[in-house]
Amino acid sequence: MRKVPAPDPAGLEPVAGNGLLDRRVFLTGAALGASGVPLPSRAETLAVEPWMKAPGAPFSAYGQPSRYENGVVRTYANPPNAPGAGAARTPLHRLHGAITPNGLHFERSHSGVPDIDPDAHRLLIHGLVSRSLVFTLDALSRYPLESRIAFIECGGNGAALNQNEPAQANAQALQGLVSSAEWTGVRLSTLLDEAGVDPQARWVLAEGADAASMSRSVPIEKALDDALIAFYQNGERIRPSNGYPMRLLLPGFEGNMQVKWLRRLKLVAEPVMTKDETSKYTLLTPDGTALQFVFPMEAKSVITHPSPDLKMREQGVYEVSGLAWSGAGKIARVDVSADGGASWAAAALQEPVLPKALTRFRLGWRWNGGPAILQSRAVDETGVVQPTRAQLLARRGARAIYHFNAITSWGVGENGEVRHVYA
Amino acid sequence: MRKVPAPDPAGLEPVAGNGLLDRRVFLTGAALGASGVPLPSRAETLAVEPWMKAPGAPFSAYGQPSRYENGVVRTYANPPNAPGAGAARTPLHRLHGAITPNGLHFERSHSGVPDIDPDAHRLLIHGLVSRSLVFTLDALSRYPLESRIAFIECGGNGAALNQNEPAQANAQALQGLVSSAEWTGVRLSTLLDEAGVDPQARWVLAEGADAASMSRSVPIEKALDDALIAFYQNGERIRPSNGYPMRLLLPGFEGNMQVKWLRRLKLVAEPVMTKDETSKYTLLTPDGTALQFVFPMEAKSVITHPSPDLKMREQGVYEVSGLAWSGAGKIARVDVSADGGASWAAAALQEPVLPKALTRFRLGWRWNGGPAILQSRAVDETGVVQPTRAQLLARRGARAIYHFNAITSWGVGENGEVRHVYA
Repeated sequence: MRKVPAPDPAGLEPVAGNGLLDRRVFLTGAALGASGVPLPSRAETLAVEPWMKAPGAPFSAYGQPSRYENGVVRTYANPPNAPGAGAARTPLHRLHGAITPNGLHFERSHSGVPDIDPDAHRLLIHGLVSRSLVFTLDALSRYPLESRIAFIECGGNGAALNQNEPAQANAQALQGLVSSAEWTGVRLSTLLDEAGVDPQARWVLAEGADAASMSRSVPIEKALDDALIAFYQNGERIRPSNGYPMRLLLPGFEGNMQVKWLRRLKLVAEPVMTKDETSKYTLLTPDGTALQFVFPMEAKSVITHPSPDLKMREQGVYEVSGLAWSGAGKIARVDVSADGGASWAAAALQEPVLPKALTRFRLGWRWNGGPAILQSRAVDETGVVQPTRAQLLARRGARAIYHFNAITSWGVGENGEVRHVYA
Repeated sequence: MRKVPAPDPAGLEPVAGNGLLDRRVFLTGAALGASGVPLPSRAETLAVEPWMKAPGAPFSAYGQPSRYENGVVRTYANPPNAPGAGAARTPLHRLHGAITPNGLHFERSHSGVPDIDPDAHRLLIHGLVSRSLVFTLDALSRYPLESRIAFIECGGNGAALNQNEPAQANAQALQGLVSSAEWTGVRLSTLLDEAGVDPQARWVLAEGADAASMSRSVPIEKALDDALIAFYQNGERIRPSNGYPMRLLLPGFEGNMQVKWLRRLKLVAEPVMTKDETSKYTLLTPDGTALQFVFPMEAKSVITHPSPDLKMREQGVYEVSGLAWSGAGKIARVDVSADGGASWAAAALQEPVLPKALTRFRLGWRWNGGPAILQSRAVDETGVVQPTRAQLLARRGARAIYHFNAITSWGVGENGEVRHVYA
């Protein structure tokens, strides 16, 4: 598991153990063949396929993916006797880039997806303010809008890594409660300025218009900083499963606080202690006490390619690629290991690297056909380093569920299969 | 049409004539009411709507927009006896931000949308190369991937502005052949390096696998610069209407050259003079000669809000917002006028401003209820200034169709209706 590759026959210098290569390897045609990328076949002509022999499909008002992509879907679990409670996960291993298409953005709901009439929907701001205000969607649309690309990650994403044995599941099942979009809406601070915030107000209760009345307490500092009332997602109106017609966007904070179907913001002096912030979304520590109000999601990353369900077919050069993010700001570096953490090399980060957004990372890797353990380790601009699973468990205990940002390890077998392992 | 507003009762300093305001106007709650933004109503409680009284819809594998957004669709025209020929346009006036959701990306097809089996599809690179190569989609996926957000604009977008009378149509109908996405794929230069480019090769014939065999000649300099073979669009596989399973992406070049359903790249010494680059996509000049091979789309912008079909309801402060882009690089500045070009003010640009990508611009505007003519004028980082319609017609003649990047003017009437006008 720790072997170092033999001297490179093509003269390629490995950047870390077990075959990690500088991405420049791909930029030299000669090296590619020598490195084992399967040579494309040689031919002068192509078959004329049936779809070239007759006109194709007509135009469509709202497009859909190819029927050949029908398997690229969210997977979801819904416990018995809890209608609409559960989560649907993004198929990270089938996607690329750093935007999640709206149809595949993860969804976490506590009582299903409400079918809200946008003309009837209202947003109330009240409590410790100079004047209570009620906004229609139309009224909100008159305010200055702002767009930003931001990730949203469920506070419980990655919780399965606390199990004693590595769950035999793929990136979607283990880490698919994180997604990304360009969100557009009104700065909450603009609306709070208009309502007039009482100096005694330290928290904001945010309540959703779903049947669960999902509610969380948000610190006033965040509400006055970069919080948005968002109503567009990747250009179009927010999808019902992501909060139509409006949601709270708290860039970098745990997803549960970014209340969907937002209907009410009440300014208060103390946190409200709603069911959603006491019964859940607290951090149980080894001594049995629970930490409350840990909000920003910590530096994290996951390798999406290769990963389980994407079998390696033959020896040769591959691109290792994945996503990194931090609720504290920008990703500064992502290290990749092919030998279970014995050695690391820095991956290339796709520009632009944006704060509190998913960052795609990539690195070359020559798989020699032997066993390997692939890992990625995110470092954010505040210097926080994504911990190993052992480090996180030592700090947080085996009952840790939320904010489980440990390194995910993929074991590559000699048969090319990729499995979730602990390393 | 040229009147200057009366001294501002709220003490707000206009930044240009007829009510253009600094966006900071929105940041002072007191100013908002005084400026005429309709005050939200006051209330302490909200009705409990029906969707809060029962669990909502269950999870879905692939999400769709709310049924209340069924009107936000592409509109399309398909001439008789030309199956699948025509275009479907993006509803720019119903979207916000700078990403186009995949379902609403414009599509221009010459013989419909082929239903391509990705496993059967091949990409051939041949001609003036050391060795011809054929790639499967799987083989291409082994190469290093690159992502970039880029606009694509049809060469004929905006052509209706050459009519003698202003077409009574909205932003979608007039300028909706431009869209934006995050595209991910392989640098074409990587594949060409592997094939070995003969020094005599100056052009690349790109051919699509549709029934029209849509074909264009691409200069070798562009092919070796930032061209991508793209197979992901906003994270998921490219939509069939945008080239599934792969398309040529030539950032900033006219859309027609970014061949969809790409099957063949032939390196040649001279342009091939295909039907698609001789019968169409040439620039007819006043003396009757046609300019060929004008590729990058010039600096351009359009105001999306307000615009036709978005009626103004009452006097007060609005946000003027729109999109700007240039095939030459980044947008440096967007000026906005509310008095038909008599005076201008610089709009705020949404960060990050990316090269060859849509840039959202925004500016405050206090509509006093009188007539107004709204215009936007893009300036790109090379110093190119978007021309007025009169300037463009003087240069290009009344038969100009392609690359029609003139300023679009929206006339606001005293009844609040917004119409396409010439100014």
